[in-house]
Amino acid sequence: MARQITGEGKTIGLVPTMGSLHEGHLSLIRRAAQKADVVIVSIFVNPTQFAPGEDFSSYPRNEKNDIEKIRLSGGDIVFIPKAIDIYPDDYQTYVTVEELTRTLEGTSRPTHFRGVTTVVTKLYNICRPDVVVFGMKDFQQAVVLRQMTTDLGYPIKFIIAPTVREPEGFAMSSRNAFFDNEQRSDALCLYYALRSARDMVKAGITSPEKIEKEMRAVIKATCSTAGIDYIAFNEFSTLRPVKKIAKGTICSLAVIIHGVRLIDNMKLM
Amino acid sequence: MARQITGEGKTIGLVPTMGSLHEGHLSLIRRAAQKADVVIVSIFVNPTQFAPGEDFSSYPRNEKNDIEKIRLSGGDIVFIPKAIDIYPDDYQTYVTVEELTRTLEGTSRPTHFRGVTTVVTKLYNICRPDVVVFGMKDFQQAVVLRQMTTDLGYPIKFIIAPTVREPEGFAMSSRNAFFDNEQRSDALCLYYALRSARDMVKAGITSPEKIEKEMRAVIKATCSTAGIDYIAFNEFSTLRPVKKIAKGTICSLAVIIHGVRLIDNMKLM
Repeated sequence: MARQITGEGKTIGLVPTMGSLHEGHLSLIRRAAQKADVVIVSIFVNPTQFAPGEDFSSYPRNEKNDIEKIRLSGGDIVFIPKAIDIYPDDYQTYVTVEELTRTLEGTSRPTHFRGVTTVVTKLYNICRPDVVVFGMKDFQQAVVLRQMTTDLGYPIKFIIAPTVREPEGFAMSSRNAFFDNEQRSDALCLYYALRSARDMVKAGITSPEKIEKEMRAVIKATCSTAGIDYIAFNEFSTLRPVKKIAKGTICSLAVIIHGVRLIDNMKLM
Repeated sequence: MARQITGEGKTIGLVPTMGSLHEGHLSLIRRAAQKADVVIVSIFVNPTQFAPGEDFSSYPRNEKNDIEKIRLSGGDIVFIPKAIDIYPDDYQTYVTVEELTRTLEGTSRPTHFRGVTTVVTKLYNICRPDVVVFGMKDFQQAVVLRQMTTDLGYPIKFIIAPTVREPEGFAMSSRNAFFDNEQRSDALCLYYALRSARDMVKAGITSPEKIEKEMRAVIKATCSTAGIDYIAFNEFSTLRPVKKIAKGTICSLAVIIHGVRLIDNMKLM
């Protein structure tokens, strides 16, 4: 199918998703539709990127609504593979990106990125995209996949699109579906902490330690039961930790709110 | 370039090589030319598939002759990338096949196949072949790459072509260039051992232990200084060791002759 589209001289855009689509995903689809003639949206809750004990089985699924949303956002083809087709019984090939996956989410979820890079490689080979669009919300994922795309020689334009936020400020996430209204307010603590960080940097503070201390206070004040997994300050492309906030520094954090692990990030300068 | 060829409705055949081409390689190129409209032959002595202390720097190189041989065998395009283009300084992505690489050559050369599968993935992505041809002489490599090709969803026809042998019987190998005439006779011990194995199986013997014992005797009788790395009996596709020679059993061996590590194999039934 991909070959037929390419044979007609049309370009292919790909937006890989795990379904349960929200406005964040739809912005990626719209962006892909601007950049390519035919947009393929894949929906696949990829088992290899979840560790045992993570929320693979409870991850929200809503294919029927997803298909309609994709159509309305400019997606042309919805690709919903079965797990057994992606990972047959004798499956044994994995794609790994080394340095970039040894920090942040990779520390907390050591097998996560191997699952992501492997499934995206398969999606690339099946869909043969000219353009792919990933969201900034999972910025480490985007940086890792961009590295994989370049390293493996794929002739693919790699776009990282901005995070879409709810009006109150918190980042859209399929996992927000797990929350009731009160819990949603608690989940705002990630955004509030990032906003504080940005404001401190605007005020001339460049010490990660000082900013982290304030962020921890903001999180606890918003949601006393929040469990902070990490707060980190890294150079965007290399993911190296910074000793001083500078141009290109991104602040990211992972926080467990009512049993749900949320991540968010913001460029500080 | 690959896209242009595909856009014209032509199919692409790819024959990845490390150069220093002999009749074995040329048979792969001729086979590819039968199966595809345009044949790309890559020449790249891939550093990541050699371990420290192996013969990367001394591996025979002969590009000028290679290009002429490729032309005469039906190759259309010769692709000779530079190491820095395949592996830039911040390179960090690797493709691994798990079970199939944990035996035979993978035991003796633990990082070898990761280098092979990674570079072939890159060649696939750059050259976008419809057909690839690999040689049976490196049969584990062929089985591993076939698994990788299927696992990662490449729409590529995978051909394994028979080993080409010198008139005396020993398998063509670029590493044969390291030998003088007398050493070449010693190198025949691999073929003699395999031939004995095949003859024993024809005579009804199905015990790997008995056959291996005889093979070791044949090797030592032909070349008293030979160092046997392994002699193994495996099921062809899964590479599982067999307890009894049966249909699909392949015998393979690695032997060090005058400091050069040679491999060869033969289907026994």
